[in-house]
Amino acid sequence: MSSSFKFGQFLIKSRLVFYQTPLSFAFTNIRPVVPGHVLVSSVRVVSRFQDLTKEEVSDLFQCVHLIAPKIEQHFNATSLTIAIQDGPEAGQTVPHVHVHILPRRTGDFKQNDEVYEALERIDAEKRTNRTEEEMAEEADILRKLLNL
Amino acid sequence: MSSSFKFGQFLIKSRLVFYQTPLSFAFTNIRPVVPGHVLVSSVRVVSRFQDLTKEEVSDLFQCVHLIAPKIEQHFNATSLTIAIQDGPEAGQTVPHVHVHILPRRTGDFKQNDEVYEALERIDAEKRTNRTEEEMAEEADILRKLLNL
Repeated sequence: MSSSFKFGQFLIKSRLVFYQTPLSFAFTNIRPVVPGHVLVSSVRVVSRFQDLTKEEVSDLFQCVHLIAPKIEQHFNATSLTIAIQDGPEAGQTVPHVHVHILPRRTGDFKQNDEVYEALERIDAEKRTNRTEEEMAEEADILRKLLNL
Repeated sequence: MSSSFKFGQFLIKSRLVFYQTPLSFAFTNIRPVVPGHVLVSSVRVVSRFQDLTKEEVSDLFQCVHLIAPKIEQHFNATSLTIAIQDGPEAGQTVPHVHVHILPRRTGDFKQNDEVYEALERIDAEKRTNRTEEEMAEEADILRKLLNL
């Protein structure tokens, strides 16, 4: 297991990573907009979806496919928002391909679309980050959930 | 080539389909929220992402990977929003897995997130639909672009 993963200019410690393959890794989020908002990224640092190889594309979404329903169930949600902000004009702030998985449920936002508003304002606002301890605890739970 | 494709309760005529594989098809949109807003769907009618087989997941995103940069370039965009509204609480209105691809550029919306607001209000509003002719013409252009 890698000791850490590059996420754009950041380093994601392995204790925050709850699932990984040779090409992709999934990790808990420092500023989730809903409970269970996690990210799945390519291991290789490339900024745009089109920069991924075919193998990376398949692997990334096989990971999403595996993770998403477990996250939805664990966080008592009934739907999911699955999204890539592919490029700065789409709200991407870390120039490294990553898929947002957000568990959704009735009434989580006043209107469904407000989840995106929250999503795209993550880095604009100076919100308080979660502690590494908090993120690592969540990663532990999700790791067990996924690696049974 | 199929004469039409099921999209939830709707039938999409083949003249609106600009790319297809045995498992996925891409088509022009009756109510695009930005120019070049297209949809890529599984051929099989299933409502949730988790209902797809592994083969369908890979095929769907290989299609997105192929289509997305060409759409971006053709519509003079610089970024893309790639999103699945996976379930009604995420804003899904047609219960059939589909990926939205939206070309994005600076200033297309007052704020980046307003694209989602528009996206999720498509069916809520009684907006004027595009004509089939208009959608077929766009599909012709995109078909040539993709099948060179």
